[in-house]
Amino acid sequence: MNFAAVFHRAQAPYSYALNPDELILRLQTGPEAERVFLHWGDPFEAGILGGAERWQGQRQEITSPLRLEHCLWWNVTIRPPYKRCRYYFELHQGGEVWFYGEDGFCTPEQNKSEDRPAAFHQPWMNPADIPAPPQWVRDTVWYQIFPDRFCRSGASSCQTPWRTGPVTNEERFGGDLPGICEKLDYLAGLGVNGLYLNPIFAADSVHKYDTRDYETVDPDFGTNEDLARLVKSAHERGIWVMLDAVFNHCGASFGPWQDVLQKGPASRYWNWFMVNRWPAPTPDRDTRDSRYYSFAFASNMPKLNTNEPEVIEYVCGLCERWVGEYGVDAIRFDVGNEVSHRLLKELHRRLRAIRPDVYLLGEIWHDASPWLEGDEYDAVMNYPLQQAVKGFFANKDRTARTLAWDLYRCLGMYRRQTGQVMFNLLDSHDTDRLFTRAGNEDAFFQQLAMLFTLPGSPSIYYGTEIGLPGGHDPDCRRCMPWDRLDEPENKERIRQLKELIRLRRTLPELRESGLCFAETEAEGRNVCYWRGDVEVLLNCGETPWQLPGEGEPLFYRNLRENALAPGGICIRRITE
Amino acid sequence: MNFAAVFHRAQAPYSYALNPDELILRLQTGPEAERVFLHWGDPFEAGILGGAERWQGQRQEITSPLRLEHCLWWNVTIRPPYKRCRYYFELHQGGEVWFYGEDGFCTPEQNKSEDRPAAFHQPWMNPADIPAPPQWVRDTVWYQIFPDRFCRSGASSCQTPWRTGPVTNEERFGGDLPGICEKLDYLAGLGVNGLYLNPIFAADSVHKYDTRDYETVDPDFGTNEDLARLVKSAHERGIWVMLDAVFNHCGASFGPWQDVLQKGPASRYWNWFMVNRWPAPTPDRDTRDSRYYSFAFASNMPKLNTNEPEVIEYVCGLCERWVGEYGVDAIRFDVGNEVSHRLLKELHRRLRAIRPDVYLLGEIWHDASPWLEGDEYDAVMNYPLQQAVKGFFANKDRTARTLAWDLYRCLGMYRRQTGQVMFNLLDSHDTDRLFTRAGNEDAFFQQLAMLFTLPGSPSIYYGTEIGLPGGHDPDCRRCMPWDRLDEPENKERIRQLKELIRLRRTLPELRESGLCFAETEAEGRNVCYWRGDVEVLLNCGETPWQLPGEGEPLFYRNLRENALAPGGICIRRITE
Repeated sequence: MNFAAVFHRAQAPYSYALNPDELILRLQTGPEAERVFLHWGDPFEAGILGGAERWQGQRQEITSPLRLEHCLWWNVTIRPPYKRCRYYFELHQGGEVWFYGEDGFCTPEQNKSEDRPAAFHQPWMNPADIPAPPQWVRDTVWYQIFPDRFCRSGASSCQTPWRTGPVTNEERFGGDLPGICEKLDYLAGLGVNGLYLNPIFAADSVHKYDTRDYETVDPDFGTNEDLARLVKSAHERGIWVMLDAVFNHCGASFGPWQDVLQKGPASRYWNWFMVNRWPAPTPDRDTRDSRYYSFAFASNMPKLNTNEPEVIEYVCGLCERWVGEYGVDAIRFDVGNEVSHRLLKELHRRLRAIRPDVYLLGEIWHDASPWLEGDEYDAVMNYPLQQAVKGFFANKDRTARTLAWDLYRCLGMYRRQTGQVMFNLLDSHDTDRLFTRAGNEDAFFQQLAMLFTLPGSPSIYYGTEIGLPGGHDPDCRRCMPWDRLDEPENKERIRQLKELIRLRRTLPELRESGLCFAETEAEGRNVCYWRGDVEVLLNCGETPWQLPGEGEPLFYRNLRENALAPGGICIRRITE
Repeated sequence: MNFAAVFHRAQAPYSYALNPDELILRLQTGPEAERVFLHWGDPFEAGILGGAERWQGQRQEITSPLRLEHCLWWNVTIRPPYKRCRYYFELHQGGEVWFYGEDGFCTPEQNKSEDRPAAFHQPWMNPADIPAPPQWVRDTVWYQIFPDRFCRSGASSCQTPWRTGPVTNEERFGGDLPGICEKLDYLAGLGVNGLYLNPIFAADSVHKYDTRDYETVDPDFGTNEDLARLVKSAHERGIWVMLDAVFNHCGASFGPWQDVLQKGPASRYWNWFMVNRWPAPTPDRDTRDSRYYSFAFASNMPKLNTNEPEVIEYVCGLCERWVGEYGVDAIRFDVGNEVSHRLLKELHRRLRAIRPDVYLLGEIWHDASPWLEGDEYDAVMNYPLQQAVKGFFANKDRTARTLAWDLYRCLGMYRRQTGQVMFNLLDSHDTDRLFTRAGNEDAFFQQLAMLFTLPGSPSIYYGTEIGLPGGHDPDCRRCMPWDRLDEPENKERIRQLKELIRLRRTLPELRESGLCFAETEAEGRNVCYWRGDVEVLLNCGETPWQLPGEGEPLFYRNLRENALAPGGICIRRITE
């Protein structure tokens, strides 16, 4: 027995309530484990003698483990009749049998004589503690807009010519909220029903991540009334609106920071920030000298002290107004991993009170488990999934099997209900653009086909519908070339993307959690996975693939008489 | 490389802030791993290019792993200069080198060419999020009292003769709060400085875990004024007071439950409980029929619905009065694992606001990690540690090495700061008594010696000072035989226990976290461990043990000229 490889804790994602009735358990073992049984039952089945009772649960085999690169995941869903569950595992391998619990391993003899192992417990499935993200997010396809570069309305006073091609972060192009409003019908026509706007409140830079005034829409983008109008118009078209909240730090011209710069420790805002030395010795340099803490080492973005009750109160008040007064449906939290948990818990509590289905999304690039316990964020931006897809397409050594391992790992990081509302994206204002990274139209659409057929809430970055190119920031922030939408190749791209969006929004299977890769195709780069009865086939190799079986085609590229050419896509409903 | 055995997540206890400056990391590997290095640094060291940057941390070897039964724990403490930390590990074994991060393993070549592995992150060490339990608990030795059986004052109207020997749960012996008050000088004389009282509020049973009235001290025990006097008198003697809070369930005669029984769904308290069928079909039987949910299956203890805002408000108000008006220092939460997290978080927030160093203790017998994130309980009753000690003494096949494995496992379950305030106990009103379980005076004192020299806040159950015997409930709840305290063997027991308590309270080493077992003594049952410069030696075998080295004896039993007889104890300060 590979004892060291066996792992379980009575915590998500190894053990958690999916809802008040169902408990999901996962035992992780080495690949050599042969059979696993679960012993489970009510903890009080045998009485309440403080350890003197002889408890015995029911025994149930866990079959069909999920195979990852180095381990097996033995998953099972049970329904504890009294909401309580006590359990341990029984492992079989090479003729050996071991019981495994919280205190380790014991033999069947020890199990009989010593009442070991110590059992795992899910003591009570309290509804208030079970993460229940807003269900509308499962049905949403997001469209991310970098406001300065999307659409300039007639109201803009900006004189810079709207331009195709590379841009800098110093230029302003005058995209604004009325411009976005003008394009809502276009967006609805694409089929998207969620709008994610990069920051829109007053700030000095073009990206507006250096907020000067959290209460006023940046004059470059319009007015607070424009925001109200945009939300209302979007809602009339069935489009949800998500704002970008920048509470990790502010901009250098934010009033309270200016007050601190003037008055130092005497400022009534002194505790709003994290100033370590005063007066600051080198005011113009980056903050590697720790004179105060800032976003990264940017001196113009001092960190807000989100430990401070006054800051928490301030932030909560702002968000309550965005949600309560403007009707904003969702908030994305920039640098969402550095803001204090205390702030996020308070904010969650207060926003849920005024809007029970508000969606709170964290910008977290790494494992975000601590933020996804149900009382902070509902989900995070799914960069690990982006990395998995990106890595597979970038590296021809990877096979369909390694892709499956990676995606199973990503989907297994969090609770199932969280996975359904994860914000899945392949690019953003913070990465190179998918079209440029993909390198060709086939790989571009193959990755989009994955985006729209994997569990989670898919998001596309403005311009993706026409394959807008762009390297890393600032190149990924080019102006939307509206005058090119009618070019034949762009019309064709839009048509195909609309089709993918339509599939995503109409096939209930694509909004569920199940994902299963075909074992038969694992060795090469022919990718085949199922979402319920929907089969997704991608030829990422270099030779034609004669597709097995039959199906009703739902979307395809480079498919001819059941032969999928390299670069091809076939999404079909299994019919046999 | 045993890939499947390698485990890390950026969460406690694998990764957590000890304080705003220090980050503790633990990598778990199989026993065959030879060397481990940590690569770490600020996540923004290389810029903020959204994944395009080439980050490189500093490389530091992690030495001296802790050896557990099936794995190694590679522990290291680092000080991230900007409160942020990005990191991954490098593992060496049999000439192979692998990097390990959030997305798995990669070779040194992949590390160079693909910017893998995905790093782990501790994004910001926010003080508000770092568990900081009250420091006074580290210096506290608790004394648990079952009120009906400790001391009866002259004010009691109870006529049942105070009796030595077995008792039942139906009998009342008239122990009361004024009686406890009378013994405060005795308790202070023992050296204990924390009082943990089993429930004292009005309830029908003798144990009072079936509350009828949460606002009134049970008339059997006295009045609310008696409680106020007891707390005041205890404080005057430097003794902290902890009450037992029963919020998982109430008693059958609790007003709101009676209202529900009378009015059913029309009762304004209907939502305070979890009634599944109405009218309840079999009112006198246990609740295995799920007609409503209760503690275990006891029909006279209906569960409170701690998901319900009104119940949360009610409970918070009660505790605020206990702490704010009566000056109670600590609260122990009965069945603390079934109460909703939502209630506990709200309660923590509100109690900390009126009393920043209140101690909140959960009755949780299993791994309680989800409750110990700093915003619910400060600690739990340390039954896993009790099991480890008990198992070692009960089973002669276990060696000093298996004891070390078990204790390392127990101490490694939670953050270091939590470990320092864990409520360590060897027995309670819910278990058989230590003296009876130990079977002889030597094993009794050896286990007490461990209790007082292990990390955590030790608690003894009333009567332990004279070796009061008792099997499981109800036998562990005998009357305190005050008339026997002067018997020579009891005087000697009291003397020795006082000595152990004194050591615990005067040696700072015993209040710290470090625990290190001697490797040399591992095979047999000679136990040797160090707490800083304090060495604890227990001969749990069957032959005399010629002690190695020298030391200044602090406490000993059965020690003669550096030879420790079976059953012997030597606690000494290492002098060389």
